[in-house]
Amino acid sequence: MESVPVQLGDRSYDIRIEAGSLRHTGRFVTELFGSNPRKVGVVTTRTVAELYLDTVFDSLAHEGMEVIPVVLPDGEEHKTTATWESILTRFIEARFERNSLIVALGGGVVGDMAGFAAATLLRGIPFIQVPTTIVAQVDSSVGGKVAVNHPLGKNLVGSFHQPRGVWIDTRVLTTLDHREVISGMGEVIKHAVIRDKTFFAFLETNLEQIMGFHAPDPVMERFIAWNCRIKAGVVSEDEREGGVRAILNYGHTVGHALESVTGYGRFKHGEAVLIGMLAAGSIAAARSLLDEHELERQNALILRTGVRGRVDDIETDSLMDAMRLDKKVQEGRIRFVLPEGIGRASIYSDVTIAEMREGISRMLDICRVQYQAESLHERRTGI
Amino acid sequence: MESVPVQLGDRSYDIRIEAGSLRHTGRFVTELFGSNPRKVGVVTTRTVAELYLDTVFDSLAHEGMEVIPVVLPDGEEHKTTATWESILTRFIEARFERNSLIVALGGGVVGDMAGFAAATLLRGIPFIQVPTTIVAQVDSSVGGKVAVNHPLGKNLVGSFHQPRGVWIDTRVLTTLDHREVISGMGEVIKHAVIRDKTFFAFLETNLEQIMGFHAPDPVMERFIAWNCRIKAGVVSEDEREGGVRAILNYGHTVGHALESVTGYGRFKHGEAVLIGMLAAGSIAAARSLLDEHELERQNALILRTGVRGRVDDIETDSLMDAMRLDKKVQEGRIRFVLPEGIGRASIYSDVTIAEMREGISRMLDICRVQYQAESLHERRTGI
Repeated sequence: MESVPVQLGDRSYDIRIEAGSLRHTGRFVTELFGSNPRKVGVVTTRTVAELYLDTVFDSLAHEGMEVIPVVLPDGEEHKTTATWESILTRFIEARFERNSLIVALGGGVVGDMAGFAAATLLRGIPFIQVPTTIVAQVDSSVGGKVAVNHPLGKNLVGSFHQPRGVWIDTRVLTTLDHREVISGMGEVIKHAVIRDKTFFAFLETNLEQIMGFHAPDPVMERFIAWNCRIKAGVVSEDEREGGVRAILNYGHTVGHALESVTGYGRFKHGEAVLIGMLAAGSIAAARSLLDEHELERQNALILRTGVRGRVDDIETDSLMDAMRLDKKVQEGRIRFVLPEGIGRASIYSDVTIAEMREGISRMLDICRVQYQAESLHERRTGI
Repeated sequence: MESVPVQLGDRSYDIRIEAGSLRHTGRFVTELFGSNPRKVGVVTTRTVAELYLDTVFDSLAHEGMEVIPVVLPDGEEHKTTATWESILTRFIEARFERNSLIVALGGGVVGDMAGFAAATLLRGIPFIQVPTTIVAQVDSSVGGKVAVNHPLGKNLVGSFHQPRGVWIDTRVLTTLDHREVISGMGEVIKHAVIRDKTFFAFLETNLEQIMGFHAPDPVMERFIAWNCRIKAGVVSEDEREGGVRAILNYGHTVGHALESVTGYGRFKHGEAVLIGMLAAGSIAAARSLLDEHELERQNALILRTGVRGRVDDIETDSLMDAMRLDKKVQEGRIRFVLPEGIGRASIYSDVTIAEMREGISRMLDICRVQYQAESLHERRTGI
């Protein structure tokens, strides 16, 4: 068992990571809240519900709680104000009070919607995160950012609402689709590059073992905890993203543009981040913030995840246009997170158009070579 | 000019009260935020827009800001998630950024909706309150409670989001409908009874002058500031209503029930609070928390506001039923705020059904007598 504190004054909480812990969710809630809450809403999606809802339901009911499950359809296209409102209505009908609890059981989309429901029901009720994907376990469940999408853009409607606890069972990851595992590595490698060279070396040693879930439970727990510690450290320094928290956007500026120009259908979010780091790393290397050897180490680790995706139809210009529309643009300036060696990063507002174009162009080159090599490999091996 | 600080750590702000200050709104914004924000959304309603939008618009534009007005229809029936979403969409279309500003220009409904939009747009952007009704100036603009209604109940969807400043022009009150003035006195007299006997004496001396707007500007400023100081004091002690803030619900338990059983059409909120205080005061007197002389002083001041309303069709039982459905009920217990003399109040969870019935019955008696006397007066004088 690993435990990671998130230090946020009177909003502090613990992340607890333990293989096989899902069936003890009820005990965790009782430890956190005592004899309250009597009513617990569990928000999840169909896929997760089939696998894990019974376990969580029984564990909460066993502690004497009245459990109200809300099972949403899968997919980010349902992360809307309409779905959020349906969650609220369900819990209002169930006569939730200010000391009732919401449990977010699932990936990032569930965490966002359940969290935003908790933030806004009766002006805010407690919630806990029980994340079931790598992205959610290492990133989105920590830090209190909750939101739904708006027809005009992602995550435009939301708030900061910290969970009262995060409860992570590493064994649930084994049921993930492999591309979901690759996507999870986007935030993982990002954490290593921006904050922790020791963690980067750990990944260089253990990447395939972790991604294949061949690692023993304590290694998996350590792997998840390490990520949470990095994320929690950044969030503690800057809860509302006034400053340093923005370094968590490493790889995201180009990554979001990639998702946008391909209509959000081709790349998973973390895959786009993996590819986006190739561009940002290249810009950093061109500025000599990163030496060539460090850039190669980063890129090699990224490619070892197996991330791939067709880029031959993507123009540098359309990526540039998409970046200008990003919500992180301030007063027309595109802000780039650039690594300064492996394990450290800062925010730069002075990256020129020429530097961006060059970085994107290098990124597209790497992807093309990789994609062709893999297509060739597939044709040869018949995979 | 009066200034009242609201002490809430890093969420502290000032309330500034000055007759004729509306036309300086732009200067106030510049003082608070410097050269930012460049974009300011002004949320208001049709009635207020006709009277005051031009003044506020010009004053902001004069400071070089791009002003985006959103004019909503009048009436609490529009305080819905649908209206809230339309506000968000308007500001997203206008490409609001995290340092854009929302100005709530109007009464409590506008403050609630504009505030909830500010709380949830891009995970929270700054807003200021420019309240134009007595209720909003003395109560709802201070404290950061923002919400919209849900079909199943009032203010069930919302959050705590403190404004960055409150800017009050007492002269705008002169355009209020007289019943709106009476309603405002509900929160005013409540403030005096629960927290400040000197303020209560001030009201005994000045009530009619204030309600008729015959008081000179400095008296009006002092009157509003006094209320804000009381409200701010309570909110500073307990921002999220974990304890003492609940005393602001004095008169509200029975008041809400009155609004509910009459379908929200007969009494304005503050009128129902005025009447509700008759019941709560009576319960307190029966417990000897309040002596008979104090009860008479409270009731006399309440009746001097001119509050009236037919109650002959209202049953004690239906009020009791409505109280049990209130969202302030915890684990089935109705919590009553009871005055302990004039100027002090506490929360009691042990008020018996019999005590409540007796209090409500006394309240209905007083209303009936008053209503009949006034009807008689109207028939005689032809008013």
